[in-house]
Amino acid sequence: MTREHQITESVCPRYHHAIELIGRRWTGAIVLTLLQGACRFTDIANAVPGLSDRLLSERLKELEAEGIVTRTVHAETPVRIEYHLTAQGHDLSNVVEAVSCWATRWLPAPEAALDGVEELAAAR
Amino acid sequence: MTREHQITESVCPRYHHAIELIGRRWTGAIVLTLLQGACRFTDIANAVPGLSDRLLSERLKELEAEGIVTRTVHAETPVRIEYHLTAQGHDLSNVVEAVSCWATRWLPAPEAALDGVEELAAAR
Repeated sequence: MTREHQITESVCPRYHHAIELIGRRWTGAIVLTLLQGACRFTDIANAVPGLSDRLLSERLKELEAEGIVTRTVHAETPVRIEYHLTAQGHDLSNVVEAVSCWATRWLPAPEAALDGVEELAAAR
Repeated sequence: MTREHQITESVCPRYHHAIELIGRRWTGAIVLTLLQGACRFTDIANAVPGLSDRLLSERLKELEAEGIVTRTVHAETPVRIEYHLTAQGHDLSNVVEAVSCWATRWLPAPEAALDGVEELAAAR
């Protein structure tokens, strides 16, 4: 492939869709939280500082529509609702790890360490 | 680490920043294009269908501010401006590959194949 060919080639729509799906505001954080084992709405909300209930609800619906999350309603009293990653959603762990490795390497360390992501990587 | 501890742990700010930086509208596509060898504004614009010059300019400035892209002005007539990834920017190739692998595996195939990304992966 010549360089001329390379630089006029269009970006693949699948890649384009995927990176903007996972990188959409709050979505990357929500997916990480689900990978770490959260399954209740409140647990996810608590793990993502600044995320409103309205936006969490919206993002979970989007992730459900994309086949990344399933929503299960347990007919108990009170009713119990759980969110879980599908196989497609779990497979995003490679993306989450690549991003967190890059972030650890290049971004200034915050007060809170990357413990959660490192433990996720160690557990695989 | 207990499950209770896991699910109340906050998402790391570095990871959160990184995933929303690379996943911001158009940014993932621009970074892929730069990884594939584009360095002129027009080449990048041509490789990303639907991206306006105004937004490309804005995104390139953001990427420069984040230390991912450098802008070089060659004092020729006419003046020649080139954009290149820094070491930090090149290191995003792992993220780009993880996303494109996931996209290839899970998203419906578009008419255009993932040739560009596959060749990028093969060249590393």
